[in-house]
Amino acid sequence: MNVYIIGIGLIGGSMSLDIQEHYPEATIYGIDINDAHLEEALQRQLIHQKATRSEVQNADIVIITIPVHVSIDVISEVLATINDNTLVIDAGSTKEKICESIATHPKRRNFLAAHPIAGTEFSGPSAAIRGLFQGKTNIICEVEKTAFTLQEKALELFKNLGMRIRYMDPKSHDKHIAYVSHLSHISSFMLGKTVIEKEKNERDIFDLAGSGFASTVRLAKSSPAMWTPIFEQNKTNVIETLDEYIANLQEFKTLMLQDNFEGIYEEMENTNHIKKILNGIK
Amino acid sequence: MNVYIIGIGLIGGSMSLDIQEHYPEATIYGIDINDAHLEEALQRQLIHQKATRSEVQNADIVIITIPVHVSIDVISEVLATINDNTLVIDAGSTKEKICESIATHPKRRNFLAAHPIAGTEFSGPSAAIRGLFQGKTNIICEVEKTAFTLQEKALELFKNLGMRIRYMDPKSHDKHIAYVSHLSHISSFMLGKTVIEKEKNERDIFDLAGSGFASTVRLAKSSPAMWTPIFEQNKTNVIETLDEYIANLQEFKTLMLQDNFEGIYEEMENTNHIKKILNGIK
Repeated sequence: MNVYIIGIGLIGGSMSLDIQEHYPEATIYGIDINDAHLEEALQRQLIHQKATRSEVQNADIVIITIPVHVSIDVISEVLATINDNTLVIDAGSTKEKICESIATHPKRRNFLAAHPIAGTEFSGPSAAIRGLFQGKTNIICEVEKTAFTLQEKALELFKNLGMRIRYMDPKSHDKHIAYVSHLSHISSFMLGKTVIEKEKNERDIFDLAGSGFASTVRLAKSSPAMWTPIFEQNKTNVIETLDEYIANLQEFKTLMLQDNFEGIYEEMENTNHIKKILNGIK
Repeated sequence: MNVYIIGIGLIGGSMSLDIQEHYPEATIYGIDINDAHLEEALQRQLIHQKATRSEVQNADIVIITIPVHVSIDVISEVLATINDNTLVIDAGSTKEKICESIATHPKRRNFLAAHPIAGTEFSGPSAAIRGLFQGKTNIICEVEKTAFTLQEKALELFKNLGMRIRYMDPKSHDKHIAYVSHLSHISSFMLGKTVIEKEKNERDIFDLAGSGFASTVRLAKSSPAMWTPIFEQNKTNVIETLDEYIANLQEFKTLMLQDNFEGIYEEMENTNHIKKILNGIK
């Protein structure tokens, strides 16, 4: 089995490690516009061979794990190059624009739109880890538009990687994921910004900050190159989540200004049951 | 050595476990207004004996780990009860109001104002864990107002618990800690609220949320009983952090509305160096 991975970073590299384990007969080809990353991926044995985009005509599976604005062009181009039996999968954090972009592509049935909800705040080949997808959710969009045999192939791959599958339409995906993922990144980046701006003497922050702060700003380490196009593609939904988040913060502030600390208590108590919701998420 | 711990929850209970290890000769007495907690603390061997507040006259050390609004009364009362050689320590997340409240107390020199930056999002005796304070920062305020021999005693205790000491005045403590701790809690609670309000079907959140969301809303599991009085005592500083945080979020939103995604990229890149600041915080 020939697997071509376009974009050998955290997601592509981690997938490759798991594929090598579950498909020992597979040859993994890496494609990346960053030569240093590609070389590093080879040395870390994330891939067996370097390749270029025109070679995907030999692929059984092409996995596209690159920033979502680049994906849009690359998916179309790859679909135009592959043979009839090739499965093309993406892993982007937005789905609506991507699905729209290939809606009428002659090879639409070779494509499966996926979003594995897995990752860390790190990026690049050095961030790739084994078992990243184990027990994680993988959202598949417009499954009915993918050829049956290729659906089957993809599901077997995801099953081997240990993922739970959820089906959704791209619009709903982008709307929900704005709340449970995109907003968290903004809240984290802006929390980091607020504290850094205030605390010019960074040694002071370090000394006073505990594990709670570290946890809350963890996502502020994320890659701007990956996240800027996500916010751009999901602009409308993200702005909606931001509006609601800001309104809630303002309400909290108003309660404080009014010395309504019973109200503050209630705000927190009402949110406390997130404990139950979060059980099981690692 | 007789150690009395008032409030046998996450902090008091964890301290007790470490004190038992480092001072095997110590007898730990537990005091708590919640009888069920006190009984649980005894059964979990967090304490050797139950006690009442009037008994602290027999104490060598009294550790007060209760919500900060209750602390204010309890510290004064305990200081009035103890003997001349007793060390009284608190562990509250605010320091200004607490230090003010005993500024002119005849036993002021028996008190040491401390804030160990350690904890988890859980509370109560069942949340107590060994080694919680290892490698963590402990902020001591107004050290010069504590008797030399009692300073020494306290520092030895903190050293045995593995803590790094930082000295600060109460005003600066409350100001800085508003940024690196109190604001994180609000951002997390309000993020949780925003998502819960939107996603009435909780199963959906659970399915789509990944580790990033879990990390960012972790603090929304924190105890409202503990946090409400912290926000109340640190009202002015907390409102200032909230204002700046909301302004940064609004600026981010404005950049998005303007389609200024270069600006969005820069916002994130400028905050990315929080990686370096956070190194070393667990």
